[in-house]
Amino acid sequence: MSEQVYDIAIIGGGPAGVSAAINAKILNKNFIWFSSGAASKKVERAELIKNYPALPDITGKDLAKALKSHTDSLGIESVNEIITGVYPADGSFSLLAGSKDYAAKSVILCLGVETQKPVDGEECLLGRGVSYCATCDGFLYKGKTIAVYCTDKRFEGEIEFLCSIAGKVYVAPLYKGYEIKAENAEIILKKPVKLVGDKRLAAVDFGDGQVEVDGLFILKSAFSPATLVHGLEVEDGHIVVNRKMETNIKGLFAAGDCTGRPYQYIKAAGEGNVAAHSAIEYLSK
Amino acid sequence: MSEQVYDIAIIGGGPAGVSAAINAKILNKNFIWFSSGAASKKVERAELIKNYPALPDITGKDLAKALKSHTDSLGIESVNEIITGVYPADGSFSLLAGSKDYAAKSVILCLGVETQKPVDGEECLLGRGVSYCATCDGFLYKGKTIAVYCTDKRFEGEIEFLCSIAGKVYVAPLYKGYEIKAENAEIILKKPVKLVGDKRLAAVDFGDGQVEVDGLFILKSAFSPATLVHGLEVEDGHIVVNRKMETNIKGLFAAGDCTGRPYQYIKAAGEGNVAAHSAIEYLSK
Repeated sequence: MSEQVYDIAIIGGGPAGVSAAINAKILNKNFIWFSSGAASKKVERAELIKNYPALPDITGKDLAKALKSHTDSLGIESVNEIITGVYPADGSFSLLAGSKDYAAKSVILCLGVETQKPVDGEECLLGRGVSYCATCDGFLYKGKTIAVYCTDKRFEGEIEFLCSIAGKVYVAPLYKGYEIKAENAEIILKKPVKLVGDKRLAAVDFGDGQVEVDGLFILKSAFSPATLVHGLEVEDGHIVVNRKMETNIKGLFAAGDCTGRPYQYIKAAGEGNVAAHSAIEYLSK
Repeated sequence: MSEQVYDIAIIGGGPAGVSAAINAKILNKNFIWFSSGAASKKVERAELIKNYPALPDITGKDLAKALKSHTDSLGIESVNEIITGVYPADGSFSLLAGSKDYAAKSVILCLGVETQKPVDGEECLLGRGVSYCATCDGFLYKGKTIAVYCTDKRFEGEIEFLCSIAGKVYVAPLYKGYEIKAENAEIILKKPVKLVGDKRLAAVDFGDGQVEVDGLFILKSAFSPATLVHGLEVEDGHIVVNRKMETNIKGLFAAGDCTGRPYQYIKAAGEGNVAAHSAIEYLSK
C-alpha cells in the first residue's frame, strides 16, 4: 500500500475532470488527478464547438488548450496513469494503476463514455482468465498460451513484457505502426468478437476462427464503469448518480459523459464542479 | 391571448438562461428568451471567477461580456420583460408580463436565487391584496388606499401609474435616487417587515408602525419560484428537479441557481444545456 491517503482522487482528463480538479485545487484539498490524455484527445478531435457559453465557435483543439492553460495557471499537475480498478475499503478507496496503487478518501469518476464496446463475454470473464493489467497478472501465465488485444501503441511495452513470460502469445495490435518483435508472438489483425468459456476463459473467437488460450489481456485506455468499480450501479452503461453526483457507493462520485446524455462539454464541466463540491462536503463529515 | 405559440420560453438571463438559449437557437427551435438584465448584473458584480473551466481568472464583467457576445454572434435577441406568472393550461403555458401575455409549449425557468427574502406574509397573501403587477391589478384599487414596495428604479413608471389610480399611496422606494412626485404619495423609507391580514391583506407593518391598506404592490425583478408558478414543487426555496432538469410539472424545466447549490456559474451553464435538450426531447413527443 502507498502511505499517502489523498482527500480526493479524480479519474479522467476531460472537461469534467478538469473542472473537478480546478475546484479541488481552489478549495485547498490534497488531491491526485489521473489523466491519461485520452479524454482531452476526444475534445481535441471536435471540429467546432458552438455551445460552450462564453467561448463561441471554439475549435476542439483550442478548447483543449484553454482547459490545459487553466489547470497550468493553477499549478495543477496530472498523473499520466491508467486506473484499472477502484476498490472501496474501510471508508476509503484503493486505486490500482498497473503495479502501483494509490489511496484516497473520496473518488470522482470522470471516465467519459467508452466509444469501444466491450467484447462479448469481456465483463463476465474479467478476473477469470481476462485481465486489464499485464504487470499485475502477467506472472500467472508463465510458459502458458495467452492472447493480447491492444488498442493503443503506448501499451507495446506491456505486450513485450507478456511475451517474455508466456509460452505462446497471440497478439491483436489494433493500432497503427505496431512493432512486435518477440519470436513467440503471432500477430492476428482482427478484433476479438467473442470470448468463449464457462467458468473461465477457454478460447478467443476472432470471427473466422478460435484460438484456445489460458488467458487474455485487454490493454486499452477506457474502461466501462462496471468493470472499474465492483458493485457500482450502472444503467444502460451509464453510472447512476443523483443531483449531487453521488453514486450508490459512499464517497464515490461521478461526472461528465459517464453519467449519461446529453454528451456535452458544458454539462461535463458543470457536473465536475458539483462533484468536487459534494466530495468536499462528504470529507467534512 | 397572443397568437404565436413558441416551442420554448426561457426565463432568465444568467449563465443558465444563456446556455439554454444558445442550444435552443442551434437546434432551430422557435423560442423566446426573457432576460431582464438582473441576472447578468449579478455575474457582472463578481470580482474574479477562478473556476469557469477554460477561462481562468476572468472578471465577472468580462464573463458577462463574453456571454453577451456569444448570444449576439448567434443572432439571439432577448425580450426585456419581467414575467410575473406562469400558468400551465392544456399542454402549453401562458406567461404573464404586465398586461401582455405569451404562450409556449415548454418553459425553462432560470430564475437564479432571490437574494431578497420575501416579506413575512407575502406568499400567502399574494392574489389576496398583494400583487406583483401594477398594470394587471392597478384598476382594482381606484380611489383606494394602497402601499407600494419597490426595489428597483426601473419600476418608477409603475409607481406613477398606481398613484394616478389610487386615492392614497404609501410608497417604500428602497433604491437609490427615487423621484416620486405624485401628491397623493407618502414616502416611507423602510422595508415592510410583515403583512397583516387573515383572508385578505389589511395592513402593512413597517416595524415601527402599521398602515392600513386595501392593497400592496411589490415591484421587484426576482420572484420566488413558488409564487411564479402555482403548484411547482419547491424545497428550501429551490425548485425540485431531476437529472433531466424536469420539474414536477410536465413541459416545465429549471436550471441554474434556482435548482439549488452549489451556486456556480459553470453548474448553471451546464444545467441550461441539459434543460434545453430535455425541452426539445419533450417537444418531439
